[in-house]
Amino acid sequence: MSERSSKAVFLKAYPQGMPREADFEIRETTVPAAGANEMVCRTIWMSVDPYMRGRMRPDVKSYIPPFSLDEPLAGGAVAEVVESNIADYAVGDVIVDFTGGWKEYYVSNGERTQKVMPNLAPLPAWLGVLGMPGMTAWAGVTQIMKPKEGETLFVSGAAGAVGSVVCQLGKLRGARVVASAGSPEKIRWLKEEAGVDAALNYKDYKNAAELTKALAEAAPNGVDCYFENVGGMHLEAALNCIAPGGRIALCGLISMYNNTEPEPGPPNLFNLIGRGVMVRGFIVGEYADKVMEFAGEVAPLVAAGNLKFQQTEYEGLEKAPEAFIGLFRGDNAGKAVVRVGPDKV
Amino acid sequence: MSERSSKAVFLKAYPQGMPREADFEIRETTVPAAGANEMVCRTIWMSVDPYMRGRMRPDVKSYIPPFSLDEPLAGGAVAEVVESNIADYAVGDVIVDFTGGWKEYYVSNGERTQKVMPNLAPLPAWLGVLGMPGMTAWAGVTQIMKPKEGETLFVSGAAGAVGSVVCQLGKLRGARVVASAGSPEKIRWLKEEAGVDAALNYKDYKNAAELTKALAEAAPNGVDCYFENVGGMHLEAALNCIAPGGRIALCGLISMYNNTEPEPGPPNLFNLIGRGVMVRGFIVGEYADKVMEFAGEVAPLVAAGNLKFQQTEYEGLEKAPEAFIGLFRGDNAGKAVVRVGPDKV
Repeated sequence: MSERSSKAVFLKAYPQGMPREADFEIRETTVPAAGANEMVCRTIWMSVDPYMRGRMRPDVKSYIPPFSLDEPLAGGAVAEVVESNIADYAVGDVIVDFTGGWKEYYVSNGERTQKVMPNLAPLPAWLGVLGMPGMTAWAGVTQIMKPKEGETLFVSGAAGAVGSVVCQLGKLRGARVVASAGSPEKIRWLKEEAGVDAALNYKDYKNAAELTKALAEAAPNGVDCYFENVGGMHLEAALNCIAPGGRIALCGLISMYNNTEPEPGPPNLFNLIGRGVMVRGFIVGEYADKVMEFAGEVAPLVAAGNLKFQQTEYEGLEKAPEAFIGLFRGDNAGKAVVRVGPDKV
Repeated sequence: MSERSSKAVFLKAYPQGMPREADFEIRETTVPAAGANEMVCRTIWMSVDPYMRGRMRPDVKSYIPPFSLDEPLAGGAVAEVVESNIADYAVGDVIVDFTGGWKEYYVSNGERTQKVMPNLAPLPAWLGVLGMPGMTAWAGVTQIMKPKEGETLFVSGAAGAVGSVVCQLGKLRGARVVASAGSPEKIRWLKEEAGVDAALNYKDYKNAAELTKALAEAAPNGVDCYFENVGGMHLEAALNCIAPGGRIALCGLISMYNNTEPEPGPPNLFNLIGRGVMVRGFIVGEYADKVMEFAGEVAPLVAAGNLKFQQTEYEGLEKAPEAFIGLFRGDNAGKAVVRVGPDKV
């Protein structure tokens, strides 16, 4: 085998505030043949996820290093093995990993790679409900919030890849689920497809006080569990409505990811004390030892059509920046994925 | 028996911002004789505690109702039974409860009352290290933060009634303890008596950035456990230095209790996510079923002189407002108590 040319997306500059398409550029790269214990993969679908914004800051120490300007971006992908020197992987296998995003071809050593079962769900689902976002939702529900039957679960970013799974896992546990999302179409999907009990279009509310009033009406017994994807006025409203003994899974603060100046936290943290509330920040990697438990619950639900999911598809690698930026504009319903290549060549 | 006259402290008005002595007044009241299943108690020592400030706001719903302007204030007290129609209590018994503060005499039905063992420690200790503050400290250490040997524990308000016990329970568990307090004398006590590994006088630092730098130097491996009494720049600095897997016991936010306008929370809540941090707000009442476990650990330490504590004593009921206001000025070393009457009459 020989080297391949591969289009890949690079950061031209670290974005300031909201990312712009001009912050990205596609370059031609050369991917070498597979070395010993390596394989070459061809990306079929790639994922855009909010956490990637954190890697676009050169100055922030985080759990994952910043992207370099000199290397292609990276992220979750579904890909086909086109060349393999790894015993476990054969040419033609379809895999999912955290490496293949933002590029056409790549070399993998097979770490953090899993084979997909193509018959279980459409391929992009391995980047969504059956992948990292689904696992994130499951971990927040089962390892942190642990909603009990009859409790109220509030979910922000509820129509997204993570939130939509949280809503449905909450319903399956008998919780009253109150969802927040940002468009009438998302609200409709949450009510009619995800089956939530109440859904708030947060754009109808100008500030935390207004959102608090709406949430208090939708959650008359208080919020026992809160799955936080958004931050800002959502967090403040949730803390106003949190019930004694409440549990908050702090997964994301997407409304704040593009801030250029530090944004203060909510002024009502005192409620955590008097109400005996637990807040747990987390990233999904912490629960890597629970993947089988996740799959054991969620895969059968997906196979039976009992866990609904949406995806917003972008066609072509050149659309990847647009898909990514759309995360912060609320453009995408459900999981945003980009088709990089055909299922088979 | 007949009724007694009893001086008692009332709120003249709900304080705006920092309480002033003019917000309080002493009135003569009449305490009736004990009815069926009641006893009359004579207050010896009373406690002033930061949580009482929360009860001086008529408009805030909390875990405990606001004080009325038409009734004496109330709070923890050590008292002598002077008349009893309760089988378990005899005249001359010395008790501790949450009722007798801010007054000379009061009627009790014996609920939430315990007899003190006068030989174990000086009477005021039942309002401090052996009482509610000590139990609060113990609960934060053993039920929430669970410091492990070699971990770093940071404590704000460390020279206070709660913080000083947290420091020493942390040391007993083999943690490296970093303390923050607000005077050179408190810093000296923390190092020489409580045996902490490092102590910061927070008044040496103008803002969260400066305190962060000092804390990072004092806690070079990060802060695994944080016991929060203060809020403001302390919380922001702690979140900057928190280690992966950190646990925060959110006990108080005393720097914010006298705010007249809402004060924003820290801008760095995002660190909770990437570092997988748990924050748990709590009040001591939640752990009422652990009182015996608390006493089993702490009483022997006190009896053996292996848990150091300080108290700041005020003489006379009329000094109670000054003692209370001193909580927010950092006037008091260790537990602040007010002597209301002699040990025996």
